[in-house]
Amino acid sequence: MAGAKMVERQSGVALWRQIADRMRLAINNGDFDQTGMMPPEMALASRFGVNRHTVRSAMAALAEEGIVRPIQGIGTRIERRDRLRFPISRRTRFSQGLGNQTRDLEGKLLGSATEVAPALVAEALGLATGSLCVRLETVNSADKRPISCGTHYFPAERFGDIAAVYDRTRSITASFRELGVPDYVRRSTEISAIHAEGEDMRHLKLSPGAIILVAAAVNTDLDGTPIQFSRTRFAADRVKLTVEPEAEAISGSTG
Amino acid sequence: MAGAKMVERQSGVALWRQIADRMRLAINNGDFDQTGMMPPEMALASRFGVNRHTVRSAMAALAEEGIVRPIQGIGTRIERRDRLRFPISRRTRFSQGLGNQTRDLEGKLLGSATEVAPALVAEALGLATGSLCVRLETVNSADKRPISCGTHYFPAERFGDIAAVYDRTRSITASFRELGVPDYVRRSTEISAIHAEGEDMRHLKLSPGAIILVAAAVNTDLDGTPIQFSRTRFAADRVKLTVEPEAEAISGSTG
Repeated sequence: MAGAKMVERQSGVALWRQIADRMRLAINNGDFDQTGMMPPEMALASRFGVNRHTVRSAMAALAEEGIVRPIQGIGTRIERRDRLRFPISRRTRFSQGLGNQTRDLEGKLLGSATEVAPALVAEALGLATGSLCVRLETVNSADKRPISCGTHYFPAERFGDIAAVYDRTRSITASFRELGVPDYVRRSTEISAIHAEGEDMRHLKLSPGAIILVAAAVNTDLDGTPIQFSRTRFAADRVKLTVEPEAEAISGSTG
Repeated sequence: MAGAKMVERQSGVALWRQIADRMRLAINNGDFDQTGMMPPEMALASRFGVNRHTVRSAMAALAEEGIVRPIQGIGTRIERRDRLRFPISRRTRFSQGLGNQTRDLEGKLLGSATEVAPALVAEALGLATGSLCVRLETVNSADKRPISCGTHYFPAERFGDIAAVYDRTRSITASFRELGVPDYVRRSTEISAIHAEGEDMRHLKLSPGAIILVAAAVNTDLDGTPIQFSRTRFAADRVKLTVEPEAEAISGSTG
């Protein structure tokens, strides 16, 4: 029964990647919860109708994602059933959102620039054409695995110093607070999915063909003035986005 | 300048697909707004550093998505700048959400079954293990292009007849209304992204390697009782999901 669904051999996606997707789903379904271990390679090869080499490649991908971990001489232990859940809400906050799911969250500044806001950014931030913005390029990791790259734009007039502050605090919420914005809210988020490319592939340590979930978002201060436009690229293998509208109605106001 | 960013030739994603992604982005950025037409093949080939054959394949993919349309003897006209926007909110409704962006929305029943609720579904619907649910398989199209496949579960005790009603009304909102649920709200949505496979590829007319945005959602009636668990698979090339928390606060109550 388990192996009944055929893999798509002509689909142009590497076979090991399809098998990794199937294994992730099986783990998420709790198929191996009784032992907490992955079945032996031979059994998986038979279950999925592929050879052991393909199983090994798929398992390596899941290990890379932190979902399984090979234990010398014992087998492959299941570390986590599912992707990290990143909540999108009126009060979207990076660390709070993931905080209870990982031990070690890290934000890192890859680079920054002060530049004329691109047309779409100026529009999102309500800036006049030709206005300057500060752009931050960041990468965020959870338990040492990179999970997202972010490009963040801020009006330069108000947040000219944010690169230095972020580099010290490693938190956009903390940076805003230091720069006179004690609280802020999410106005809108657009979610799309694309294939990983270039720098994102490198920073997120993704293999060819991997998928990126893109969240394009606008944050405002409590007066409704836009203060940030972000394009965050999440490794879709490691993160899913969750939306729970009802929770927003009872959102508090302190961070 | 435009062609400066190299494509990733070793990335395992077909080159034409990467070029289609680049073209979609350029269209979305408004690069061709002055003429409303795509530049000639030769110009695109030079801009993206690929041959005309690749440009032609990429263009065919964009035509398939309804973004461009070849006009005999004239060139390739840009039909739409961007993907359809599907809003996720407390009052997520399929037709209302897309209604102002397309002329012709269609829902179609592919099949239905009454079966024991899978564990995850029972949990989402608050049903006892072993409870029956009705499962509907649907496909939705906009202007004759398929945009999503949905698997929808309903408690059988309350909605035993929903397959027949949906088949007639082609609307889940209308089906609920007929079955005594005048209004309902979205409790939660989980968004992930995967590679398209099997039946979804066929129904959504996707090419190999295409990406699916998955929205797993729970709807409740106004008493908070779960009435539907859905797993909707959107063609990521054609749809993006939007979340605008502030709009929810002022949601009305009639559909």
